[in-house]
This record gives sequence, C-alpha cells and structure tokens, in this order.
Amino acid sequence: MTLEFSKPLAAHQTPIPGVVLYDLPVHGDNRGWFKENWQREKMVALGLPDFRPVQNNISFNEKAGTTRGIHAEPWDKFISVATGRIFGAWVDLREGPSFGAVFTAELDPSQAIFIPRGVGNAFQTLEDNTAYTYLVNDHWSADAQSQYTFLNLADETAAIAWPVPLDQAELSDKDKAHPRLADVAPMPAKKI
Amino acid sequence: MTLEFSKPLAAHQTPIPGVVLYDLPVHGDNRGWFKENWQREKMVALGLPDFRPVQNNISFNEKAGTTRGIHAEPWDKFISVATGRIFGAWVDLREGPSFGAVFTAELDPSQAIFIPRGVGNAFQTLEDNTAYTYLVNDHWSADAQSQYTFLNLADETAAIAWPVPLDQAELSDKDKAHPRLADVAPMPAKKI
Ligand SMILES: Cc1cn([C@H]2C[C@H](O)[C@@H](COP(=O)(O)OP(=O)(O)O[C@H]3OC[C@@H](O)[C@H](O)[C@H]3O)O2)c(=O)[nH]c1=O
Ligand SMILES: Cc1cn([C@H]2C[C@H](O)[C@@H](COP(=O)(O)OP(=O)(O)O[C@H]3OC[C@@H](O)[C@H](O)[C@H]3O)O2)c(=O)[nH]c1=O
Repeated sequence: MTLEFSKPLAAHQTPIPGVVLYDLPVHGDNRGWFKENWQREKMVALGLPDFRPVQNNISFNEKAGTTRGIHAEPWDKFISVATGRIFGAWVDLREGPSFGAVFTAELDPSQAIFIPRGVGNAFQTLEDNTAYTYLVNDHWSADAQSQYTFLNLADETAAIAWPVPLDQAELSDKDKAHPRLADVAPMPAKKI
Repeated sequence: MTLEFSKPLAAHQTPIPGVVLYDLPVHGDNRGWFKENWQREKMVALGLPDFRPVQNNISFNEKAGTTRGIHAEPWDKFISVATGRIFGAWVDLREGPSFGAVFTAELDPSQAIFIPRGVGNAFQTLEDNTAYTYLVNDHWSADAQSQYTFLNLADETAAIAWPVPLDQAELSDKDKAHPRLADVAPMPAKKI
C-alpha cells in the first residue's frame, strides 16, 4: 500500500461541471490506517453540496480488470475505494452543453469523488480484491432503473482508455448491451 | 470468500438493549458481489431508529489480530465489514441496569451491526487486509474524545474471549491504557 498519507483534505474541480475529486487525509499507524471517508461539515465547507445519504452500497471486485458501467443515475453519488485501486471514468449524460464531456482518474483509498445525478459512472479495478463503496441520496429500487441512462463502456466517442482491454475484462451481460452515445437519451434536469 | 449469499435482510436483537445485528443480502456474480450496506427505508421498516449519518469512516487493518477498542462514543454507529472478517465485542457502558452487559459476534461482509451511543465498541480482525467501515450520526472532533467512555480490552469482568491473545495482537498505545470496568464512569443519558 503506497498511500500518500500527508495530504490535507482538498477539493479539485474536474472538466465535468459538478464532478469534484477529493484528497482525503489518511492516518497511518502500526495497525494500518484510518480515514474520514466522508465528513459532511468539512466537505460542505469545501463546497460539496449538502449531501444527505440514505443508502451506502459496497461492491467487491475479485479480479483486476473487473469493469462496471456506464450508469447515470437519478441521484447523486459520493464514491471511494475502501481497499484496492480503480481507474474511474465519468461521462456527462445530462441534457445540456456539457453532454458527452469525459473525465478519467485513478483512485486509491486516499481519494473520493462526488458524481452528480445524470453523470455516467464507470470503473475498472486495477488490483484484485478491490472494495468500492458509495453513498447515494435516494433509495435504489429495481424500478428506479427505468430512470437510469446507460452508455456503452466501449463507446467510440467517449473513447475511454481502459487499462485492461474490455474483451479481457470481467463485465456483466447487462453492461455489454448499453447503447452508443448517439443513441443515448440525455437525462433531463430534475423536475422540481 | 464463503459468504452466505441467500440471506434476506433481517434484524436480530442482542443481549444489549438497542444493539441490533443485521443480515444483509449479498448479490454474487461473475464480477464479485454487491450489497446494500445500509439502506435507510428498508432498515427503518425493520425497526432501526431513523439514523441520519453525517460521517463515514473506514479503517484498514493490515494483519489478522489487529484490535481496536473499547470505545463508547457520544453518537450512534452503523458498522460493517467491506472486506475481511472481524470478531466484534460490545460492552454496555451506559448508566443504568444494563451497564456491563457484553455481546460478541463474528462479522463478515454479509452482516452489519447498529451500536447506540454509549455502548463500547471493539473488534479484532480475523483476516489480513480487513477494511472496516462505519457511519456515525454526529461529527467527530479531537475534542469530542473528552466525551468518550473507554474500557480496557483486557477487562476481567467483561472477560472477552479474543481469538488472538492481546499480548500477540496489534494495538494502539492509547488502547493499552484504558481503565478496568470498576474505574469506568458510565456514560450519562443524553441531555435533551
Ligand atoms: C445498485 C443496486 C443494485 N442492487 C442489486 C441488483 C443486482 O442483483 C446486484 C448488482 O446490480 P447491478 O445493476 O449489476 O449493479 P452494478 O453493475 O454493480 O452497478 C453498480 O455499481 C456501479 C455503479 O455505477 C452503479 O451505481 C451500480 O448500479 O445488486 C441492489 O440490491 N441495490 C442497489 O442499490
Ligand atoms: C475516530 C476518528 C479518528 N480520526 C483520526 C485520529 C487518529 O489520527 C486516527 C485514528 O484514530 P484513533 O482514535 O486511534 O481511532 P481507532 O483506535 O482506530 O478507533 C476507531 O475505530 C474503532 C472505533 O471503535 C472507534 O469509533 C474509532 O475511534 O484517525 C479522525 O480523523 N476522525 C475520526 O472520526
């Protein structure tokens, strides 16, 4: 584990509006390490919307190269890695001028990323046994999936440079069937 | 990984009032597995107090036998394992008739436990590289530690049967110095 232990909490803007990358302080000692993975007060002070999670999901990914996505959901997500490392890829699928904007980054446990509603989310694990954890501010249901917007991981316009080629990666059958960008219906802004 | 994948979400009472053990459904597939680690609506329907987390902490524990505790904190905790396995031990340190009550259980990623304010929390990892994650409903600060109540992991009255003897376990210096039960000031009920 080669975490950068000395980083102070910091927020970095990305090319996708509202997608914010965080450096998290990690406290190492003889036992391992400890981190505040999400801390409402400190992150709001750094400009994170006042996120109120109602659900925490964890996926465990056995092999390096396991790939999930690209899923734009009708709620916000605060994503990080509990152990392992990922290559993350995000594609703006919201209706509007930034539709199609792409951002990619490697994340280890000393980072986190905030993904607003409508931004497509995907990752590929860079290590075996990677545990991926995220908070969301609305409840998932099988029905809610009808409000997802999906994009194919192999989309030629987004042209994501996956470290492991997708034909050698572990994917779900569902994720192999998503449409190309030209066939994606952008996610409309939330009705208020 | 030998998770019990078929369990429906269920809540189990324990000998400590308010400490509730959860079975979590874990969905396994070719990629690994996925779980709703905490889901407000479903857990409230099963009787969990309407828990509103403001902070998510993760500790990574390198070696089996790493031991942290016993810490009773002035907020509630929803605790689980992202990867690995723990032996958990809980001791009621609240003022009142259940002071000193003990509960222990092994937890793998298909379980979670709710620990109310004032109940002492501790764990020992049963596997290397165990990632321990929890949600809390108040913000930690270095100052808030003055409101903690601590108990020594080796307390003879609680008599916790640690799988790895404490003299062979990885502990913090702080955790070696906590008092015995007779010297613990019980945590008073919250002022409203
Ligand atoms: C998202 C979600 C899924 N599930 C179940 C349904 C399946 O049995 C299993 C896995 O679900 P998938 O739809 O295959 O999810 P996955 O491809 O892993 O995508 C997830 O991780 C990547 C994220 O982009 C996405 O939010 C999330 O859906 O978990 C739940 O029970 N609750 C949930 O919140
Ligand atoms: C709890 C906490 C700790 N920290 C820092 C302080 C130290 O630099 C480092 C580790 O803190 P410790 O007090 O040594 O915590 P630890 O012994 O790991 O206990 C933690 O895990 C077991 C839990 O019982 C307990 O809630 C929690 O304090 O993390 C934070 O920055 N934020 C926090 O919320």
